Order: sequence, then C-alpha cells, then structure tokens
Amino acid sequence: MENVIINYLQKPDINDPILIEGLPGVGNVGKLAAEHLIDQLHAEKFADLFSKHFPPQVLVGEDGVVKLVNNELHFVKSSNKDGFDLIILVGDYQGMTPEGQYELASKILEVAREFKVKKIFTLGGYGMGKVIEYPRVLGATTNKGLVEEMRKYGITFPKGEPGSGIVGASGLLLGLGVLEGIESVCLMGETSGYFADPKAAQAVLEVLTKILNVKVDFKQLELKAKELDYMTSKLKDLETSMIESQKEDLNYFG
Amino acid sequence: MENVIINYLQKPDINDPILIEGLPGVGNVGKLAAEHLIDQLHAEKFADLFSKHFPPQVLVGEDGVVKLVNNELHFVKSSNKDGFDLIILVGDYQGMTPEGQYELASKILEVAREFKVKKIFTLGGYGMGKVIEYPRVLGATTNKGLVEEMRKYGITFPKGEPGSGIVGASGLLLGLGVLEGIESVCLMGETSGYFADPKAAQAVLEVLTKILNVKVDFKQLELKAKELDYMTSKLKDLETSMIESQKEDLNYFG
Amino acid sequence: MENVIINYLQKPDINDPILIEGLPGVGNVGKLAAEHLIDQLHAEKFADLFSKHFPPQVLVGEDGVVKLVNNELHFVKSSNKDGFDLIILVGDYQGMTPEGQYELASKILEVAREFKVKKIFTLGGYGMGKVIEYPRVLGATTNKGLVEEMRKYGITFPKGEPGSGIVGASGLLLGLGVLEGIESVCLMGETSGYFADPKAAQAVLEVLTKILNVKVDFKQLELKAKELDYMTSKLKDLETSMIESQKEDLNYFG
Amino acid sequence: MENVIINYLQKPDINDPILIEGLPGVGNVGKLAAEHLIDQLHAEKFADLFSKHFPPQVLVGEDGVVKLVNNELHFVKSSNKDGFDLIILVGDYQGMTPEGQYELASKILEVAREFKVKKIFTLGGYGMGKVIEYPRVLGATTNKGLVEEMRKYGITFPKGEPGSGIVGASGLLLGLGVLEGIESVCLMGETSGYFADPKAAQAVLEVLTKILNVKVDFKQLELKAKELDYMTSKLKDLETSMIESQKEDLNYFG
Repeated sequence: MENVIINYLQKPDINDPILIEGLPGVGNVGKLAAEHLIDQLHAEKFADLFSKHFPPQVLVGEDGVVKLVNNELHFVKSSNKDGFDLIILVGDYQGMTPEGQYELASKILEVAREFKVKKIFTLGGYGMGKVIEYPRVLGATTNKGLVEEMRKYGITFPKGEPGSGIVGASGLLLGLGVLEGIESVCLMGETSGYFADPKAAQAVLEVLTKILNVKVDFKQLELKAKELDYMTSKLKDLETSMIESQKEDLNYFG
Repeated sequence: MENVIINYLQKPDINDPILIEGLPGVGNVGKLAAEHLIDQLHAEKFADLFSKHFPPQVLVGEDGVVKLVNNELHFVKSSNKDGFDLIILVGDYQGMTPEGQYELASKILEVAREFKVKKIFTLGGYGMGKVIEYPRVLGATTNKGLVEEMRKYGITFPKGEPGSGIVGASGLLLGLGVLEGIESVCLMGETSGYFADPKAAQAVLEVLTKILNVKVDFKQLELKAKELDYMTSKLKDLETSMIESQKEDLNYFG
Repeated sequence: MENVIINYLQKPDINDPILIEGLPGVGNVGKLAAEHLIDQLHAEKFADLFSKHFPPQVLVGEDGVVKLVNNELHFVKSSNKDGFDLIILVGDYQGMTPEGQYELASKILEVAREFKVKKIFTLGGYGMGKVIEYPRVLGATTNKGLVEEMRKYGITFPKGEPGSGIVGASGLLLGLGVLEGIESVCLMGETSGYFADPKAAQAVLEVLTKILNVKVDFKQLELKAKELDYMTSKLKDLETSMIESQKEDLNYFG
Repeated sequence: MENVIINYLQKPDINDPILIEGLPGVGNVGKLAAEHLIDQLHAEKFADLFSKHFPPQVLVGEDGVVKLVNNELHFVKSSNKDGFDLIILVGDYQGMTPEGQYELASKILEVAREFKVKKIFTLGGYGMGKVIEYPRVLGATTNKGLVEEMRKYGITFPKGEPGSGIVGASGLLLGLGVLEGIESVCLMGETSGYFADPKAAQAVLEVLTKILNVKVDFKQLELKAKELDYMTSKLKDLETSMIESQKEDLNYFG
C-alpha cells in the first residue's frame, strides 16, 4: 500500500479556498477548534486520509461499527460574497514518526495545490505549564507582511516565543508550504497543556472567525470551559484544604 | 528483498471463502482458536508469508531443523453444501512496527481479493485484567447489519467497548478491508490477558463454528483450560493462605 | 544511496564454494572464529559491504586513517583436491534493525547465488550465563539429513535448544537460504556470553575445520583463552576471599 | 516528497572548491567554527537542504516568521591566487537516524561531485569530560599522506584516539567520500563536551585557516570564550566555597 492514501468521497467545487488545520496536539486546542468550526459551519467531509504512519488501529463506535483511524478533509462554501471557501483538516492522530509527519504534510500540500488553496491557517496550543485565565493567541507566519496583518486581529508575536519552534503538522504545513509558495499562519492558544482546553480553542476561534469573516456560536465551547473551570476550582479547593490541614499538623511542633 | 513475500505451495480451488485470522495477541486467544480450527478441520497449508517486519529469527524444531519465522495460510473446503470454504491465517508474529502491520494486512487483503474472500473473521482476546469464569465474546463489525446478525449468535456489543479500539491485525484487516469492500467481524473473547487462555479461545470458537456451520471437538482446549484452572486455583489457595497468615501476624497488634 | 552497497575489489575464480559467516554476536564467538580462519588460511578480501543499516561511523586506525564500518567478504581456494573453496564473511557490525538484518542477509545470499555457493556455515555463540569449562558445539540445520551428517562431527542437537531460536545473521542466512534452495548449518559454541570467548571460538573451529578438511593452528586462540582463564580464576579467588571475609564478619554475631 | 531535497538559490561559479562541514555535535565545535568562518569570509548561501530525516519542526524568528529546519550550503570565492574557493555546510540538525545520516551525507557528496570538490574538511569536537585550558586539535584522514601533511599544521594523531571512531556527518563524509575518491580530513577540537565551546572552535579554525591560507578575526570567539571562562571560574569558586563550608561543618565533629 502507499504510505499515505487519500480517498475522495467527492471533489468539491470551491474557489481559492483557505485551508484550516486542527489535528491533535498540546491541549488538543487545534482539534477542538477545528471540530467546532466544522460543526458550526456545517462543513461536509469530502476525503479520508489513511496512512501507515498512523497507529495500526480501528476505533469502535457506540453501534459496534469500526472506523480505521484517519485524517479527514471537510469543506464549506462561503455563504456571503466577502467570505472564503474553506477546507478543514481534522483527524484522530498526527504521523507517529518524523518521516511520517513530513509525508503527511507533503500529501496535504498536494491537496492544497490541487484545490488552489491561497492561505493556510494551522491551529494549536501553546503549553504554559499552568492554568491560564485569559489565554492570548500567539502567532507565527511565513512572511513579515502577514505578521503585521495578523497583529490587527489581536494576535501577539512575542520575541523569542515559541523558543523551541513549532513541532508537528502545525509547523510543517507552514515550513513545507513556503517551498510551494503558499503563505500561512499558525495560531496558538495559550493553554496549561494538562488537559483538552476548550477555553484556548475558543480564544483561537474568536480570532480566526474574525479573520475569516464568519460567525459561530461558542455556547458549546463555553459550556465545556465552565465544566472544566468548575473541576479545576474543586481541585484547587482540595489542594488548599490539604495545605491548611498540613499547616495545622505542623502547629503541633510550633 | 520485498517487504512481504508470499510463497505459494499450491493455489487451492476454493469458492467464495471466508478468511479467519488468528495471530498472536492478548491471551493468544486468536492464535489458539485458529490453530485449533486448523487441527480439527484438517486444514492444509497453501502459502507462507515472510517479511522484514517480522523479527530476524529462525525457530529450531525438536529435530534440529530451523524454520524462518512466518505467517501461514491454510485452507479447508466445506464438507457440506451449506458450509463455507475457509482460509485460515496463523503465524509466529504480527508485524513489529505500525508500518509493518499496515503492509502485512495489506498483503493479506491482496490474497483475499485474489481468492474472492467474501467475509473476514478476525479472532482475538479482550483483556479484562482479572480471571474470567465465563468469558463473553465481544464483537465489532464493519457495518450495522452485521452487528444485528452477530447478536443472534450471542455475541455482545457493549457500548464504548473496547474503548481503546482494536490494535493490530485483528483491527487493521477490518479497517483496511472496508476500503476493499470486504465486510468483516472481529470476535474478542474475554480473558485475563495474563497467560495464553484456552477458555477464551473456546468461547470464541463456539460462536464462530455456529456461524460457520461446522462442528469441532473442544476436548483438547477443555483439557488445557482445566490444567490452567487447576493452576489458577492453586495460586488462589496460596494467595489466600498468605493473606490469612498476614492477618494472624497482625493479630499480635490487635 | 542504495540500502546495501557491495564494492568488489576482484571477482575471485572459485568453484562451488562454501560460505562461512562470523559476524559480531554472543561472546563474539562467530567473529573470533571466522577471523582466525581468515588469518590461518591466508584468505584474501574481495569485497566490502557498506550499508545505511550499519551505524553512521568511521573507525580510526592507529595510523590516523579512517575506515567506514563495513562487512567484508574474503575467499580462499582449496589447497588440496578433497577440500573446498571458501568465502568468509566477517565485519564490524550486524544490521541494526530487523529490516536491516533482512536486507543484509538477502544481499549476502545474492552473492552466494552469484558464486554458486553450495553450503553455508554460520558461526555463533550459545549464551549459558555461566563460565563453561568444556564448551560443546550445538547445531541447527536446514534439513534432517544435515543433522545426521553433522552429528558425526560431534555436534550436538539437544531437543528444545536454543529455545528462543537463532536471532540475527546466523539465523537469517539459514532461514532465507532455504527459500533460495541453499542448505546450511549453524554452529553455536557454548559460552558464558559475558566476554569475547576464544575457547568457544576454538571449539567451533575444531569442528568446522574437520568438516572442511583443513588444518589450522590454534595457538593464538589457546593463548587468548589462557589469558582469559587466568583473569577468570583471579576473579574467582577475589570472590572467594570476599565471601570468606564476610563469613568472618558474621562470626562476630555468631 | 523525496527523502532529501536540495533547493538551489544559485549555482555558484567556483573552481576545485574545498568543502567544509560544521554541523551540530559535541560541544557544537564544528557548527561554531563553520558559522564563524561564514561570517568572517562573508560567504553566501546558495542552497537549502530539507529532509524528512530532520525533526518535523519550524523555528520562529524574532520577527515572528518561521523557517523550516534545514542544512545550508554557503560558498566563498578565494580573494587571492594561492587560496581556495570554499563550500561551507552548516545547519540546525544532523539526520536523526543512522539511515538519515547516510542519506544526507550521500546527498552532500552528490553536491561535492557536481562542484568537483577536491578535498573535504569536517569539523567537530572531541569530548574530554573535563574543562580543557589549551585544546589540542586531533585529526583523522582518508590516507597516510594526508596524515603527514596535517601534522605540519600542528594537528595531532594520537594512537588509538578517538577509540570509538567518529560518529555522524563528520565521520560519514570521510568514509563515504573515500568511495567517491575524495580525500578528506576530520579536525576535532578538544572540549569538555558540556556546553557550546568557542575556545575549541577557535583552536580548530586557527589550524584550518592556516591550511586554507585565509585570515579571520577571532575577536568574537575570544569574547565568547572569555564569557564562558568567567562563568566557569564563578562556578568553581562556588564549588570551592561549598566544599570549605562543608569542611567547617565537619569540624564540629572533629
């Protein structure tokens, strides 16, 4: 079998689309954001990607029916004149090896060429190692003009961050895209990195939807974020009361 | 050398066969079941699979003669009108890397195409982490119709299980088989997962033989299961007496 | 570059040669034996094998000149009518991955075909986990006839040994050789496996030279073995005196 | 995508150039030296190497613009008659697997052939495990004549060093270069190996620039070395005072 297989369900009729990538990663920020976008814009799946660079695994649905792990391409045509047609990439896994990452990103860029994608936005999380109340959205782009353009939407470009660069599909699509002459932006929502983070996903989407000139409802993400906040605060209470109780214990020796 | 080599000893004359897979895995349930089936139905080997995705190893027989580690394809023609011709896949190893797993499953499906396999049953164990008195047989299939059909044979499809999906050949043959238009079923016998489990293998085979409309003698598996039960009960006795003895020790402080 | 490169220095004029393999492995038994054979029979190098399956490394000689790590093929023409022309395979490393092992063994067998090799002897160690005074030579072959033939030379074929089979080039050349119709024997000298073992290498060579009907001087190996015995006995003395001293310490509490 | 991609920005008009390699490695000696040479000689980039053997990563510049991790080829034409045209290889990473190392070195040698490179110098560090006041420069070459020639420049060829050979690009370019008939020298500056070592880089460059008959200013490297010396001495002071303070503590029990 080929290293990467694309199975088209249809070849959508879209014009100069923008490609959005949201695969699993830090805080699953990109995946949550892209899936929410698919849900809200009623995007339609048009292709499956299978690859020997994914785990040799099927997932089993609630109905007992299996699904080979994959990446998926969805599309949505713009509902207004000033908007953009979109291709949205989501999936169960990223490539499991460096070589796999390169081959998958390379295949995605083949699709991008075929559909004449004019810009790529990759979505991800920026791990902060602590809970973030108001996550900022950091950016990285393929040229200086885009940096200036993106600043207008409130995206920050702090010097020296991310210091270790961007690893995985969110970085490679930009880096390999340059070789194909495609300009791209990576949007990274600040996140603790400890759990799937709907708040960071919302922060990223709020910026992205402004850029794309589309409206989406954030209720579902906000609900998830509230549940998470509740659980986090409970954990903090527990932590505090444990520290208090330890202090009391120490008082015996005070 | 090619990544996967198939050496045919003969090309059997079989019609619309069903493919049964039983390779090493959790509790070696699939392997035990498939080997018992080969034994009972007097299936005949017709092909060897060698691959650089297997360990670089030969096994040494009791007579001092070596055998390169492999997978094997056996066949059996149906002895009655209402039965099915079978191809049975067994072997020493599964592919050792994700890439190897995909290439091997892909090669098996080439064989399936060539022999016009109409259905695949993959056999495996479902690890429970504790000894199971009466193992159930869990199922997963490639479509909802098959789920309903399989329920009739007592196969259970509990929601959300197996939560982590099915990894390895038993999963991939289903997942990649769908892309080839082959419908398949995975049968998983509940097992502790701690040792090769003949009881789980028998549970799987009892269901499978009903589906296939063949009769097999389970004496050998029952014997192995009894030996295992005996050993397990001895271990439990030992465990119990150790706990008792610890309780007595603690009584000194009671 | 190709995965495996063979650079011929010359194409020797040899007839129905026997191929001897002695690559690094357990106790370096095979390597020691094959290198001693090359030395004693004044075998001549005729080809280098380089491969991306070896480490990316050059060795530096005492003169400051580098050598890319490799495998080497040497040959020797028989000096008498009843003898055999030989090809001897030695080297710095075996392939570092299963895939590499298969590709290298496969390439060696291409050479074997080209030179019409009629039999292969692979040499190795059989790890015993303890020092062996009089190492036996265990065998494994590609057919029953060879087992009987080899028994005559004092080679033992104990049932169920080696239980884990034979891993690496010494096993693969047999296993893949069968697919090419080449009959082969693996000779394994018993060794502790803790250090390079000249005694086991000599045991293997004594048998092999009888089979090949050649005479070699074992002085160098015997010298190395004596040095090793001396060091081993010193270690044992040390061990004994440490145990004695501990016993004395314990007497204080006696 | 191909395993290794070379993107030429231009094809420089250079004659019988010498290739200098300075990729990341022990003490980053080679990288520091080669980058300093590029800086001082105003070498010009003429090609980028991208590869799936590098990490799947982009680096983010201070301006927010990304750069796919790569290796780079720079060139400089000689400013005097007796000098040499140079190609200088630097980069973010070496290949991450043995196979990747071989493929990358092999690709570099293709470039060397195309530009008729007549000699290769690879630069690296020789890890000593302790801080080195006056680092020597060790050498290894592809033939004895070069050893003698290099000794004249103060390069040392101590017997049996480096005992473990030379691993990575600095070794492979020599080893694979021999197969292409290119003679080469590896220069290794002694370094602790604990941090990026400008002093060792300077030692290597002082020798190399003599050989190449070019002059470079070492002020920047000397400045970096002084900063490092200062930090190292501070660490030593701290260490000493900690030992003193521990001694004092022990005096209480004196």
